[in-house]
Amino acid sequence: MADKNGTTILLLSGDFDKVFAAFSLASAAASAGMDTTIFFTFWGLKAIQKGNLTGSGFMGRMIGLLNRGGLGRLNPSKFSFGGMGRWMFKKMMAAKGAAGLPELRQACIDLGVRFLACKMSMDVMEIKRDDLIPEVDDVVGAATAMKFAAASAVQYFI
Amino acid sequence: MADKNGTTILLLSGDFDKVFAAFSLASAAASAGMDTTIFFTFWGLKAIQKGNLTGSGFMGRMIGLLNRGGLGRLNPSKFSFGGMGRWMFKKMMAAKGAAGLPELRQACIDLGVRFLACKMSMDVMEIKRDDLIPEVDDVVGAATAMKFAAASAVQYFI
Amino acid sequence: MADKNGTTILLLSGDFDKVFAAFSLASAAASAGMDTTIFFTFWGLKAIQKGNLTGSGFMGRMIGLLNRGGLGRLNPSKFSFGGMGRWMFKKMMAAKGAAGLPELRQACIDLGVRFLACKMSMDVMEIKRDDLIPEVDDVVGAATAMKFAAASAVQYFI
Repeated sequence: MADKNGTTILLLSGDFDKVFAAFSLASAAASAGMDTTIFFTFWGLKAIQKGNLTGSGFMGRMIGLLNRGGLGRLNPSKFSFGGMGRWMFKKMMAAKGAAGLPELRQACIDLGVRFLACKMSMDVMEIKRDDLIPEVDDVVGAATAMKFAAASAVQYFI
Repeated sequence: MADKNGTTILLLSGDFDKVFAAFSLASAAASAGMDTTIFFTFWGLKAIQKGNLTGSGFMGRMIGLLNRGGLGRLNPSKFSFGGMGRWMFKKMMAAKGAAGLPELRQACIDLGVRFLACKMSMDVMEIKRDDLIPEVDDVVGAATAMKFAAASAVQYFI
Repeated sequence: MADKNGTTILLLSGDFDKVFAAFSLASAAASAGMDTTIFFTFWGLKAIQKGNLTGSGFMGRMIGLLNRGGLGRLNPSKFSFGGMGRWMFKKMMAAKGAAGLPELRQACIDLGVRFLACKMSMDVMEIKRDDLIPEVDDVVGAATAMKFAAASAVQYFI
């Protein structure tokens, strides 16, 4: 076996802080020359949606309603306070010159991080390929995610 | 050192979506021929309980009360709405032909995934071996979980 | 490549149960002779603060207010009930002779676990080096955390 040099991140969370961590780690790994993959599943899909996550059926619309937003409207895992926590974080991060989520995601894209979307989550939540940003490389299942993970030196579930 | 080919998942969460992810990844890993282990700790124990998690003492009953359910009554990490989120997820998953938690857990068992339960969590939460499904292979401590992890190619904390 | 024998834990959570898991796993790894590192980021910084996490600016004070406590006042990820969940857990753990968070953290320190604090989180949350316990080895960025992770046999994101 050749030495493994990749990183695979499974992103289930759609919380601001966790998505932030995922993109930070992925861009750090890719910057260091590691072959890097993020597999977006469940709420993590919010990080690669174009706008709202809204399925065509009743259930999908319902989830979309609860979930409305886009990358700019994710709440932190603590202290969301109806958006107040997000506002505070953004404010503080801007004040400190930290990159925002859209910039971090773009950095990942520019550094060649592979974006994989979970097929089953998309089916269940009634999200179509067209609802996701075009930079998503592929729509795959858990077996493919595990294959990337097994070939990687570093794996994270976030 | 021989090439590592295993997967070890530490499951601390009892949320529907995270338990679902753990069983999905474990069954995918085992299907791919990897030696696969799940270590159930804290709320993760709910995924291998027979019925309710109720300790014999006052504290244990109290936790059991808060925690009542079983595999069929886990709520998602977001939008639980007193069970509404769970109902929606189940509805959507059934509509899409996705396996439910009991089916996924059974698939893990059938594929030979090793189920380990955290001794300390069981002590603290007053859960007895007999409260867990018989398919649990062993009750062990964190040191044993780390040993399995260190011998694995892939590790996740969920 | 020499065989990897380390463990790197990225701790983003400040929840009682997850901090507990991080320190338990780290001390188990270090006890087994593994070179062990914890990278504390976002809420995870609460686990290595001296007292309250309070920044000097308005935003920092606000986060500090929401976040007040210290290692002895972390709430579990479920059932916090304004501190009730924490109280119950402590009560049950003491009754069962399980170590508390301060003891577990001290065990990590005594076993030589490397404590790294996330520079960007500290900047954003207005936390100074002096607000952290002196046992913190260094304040570093995500790139350094990834370097430790890539050199480790086991990685967890908690």
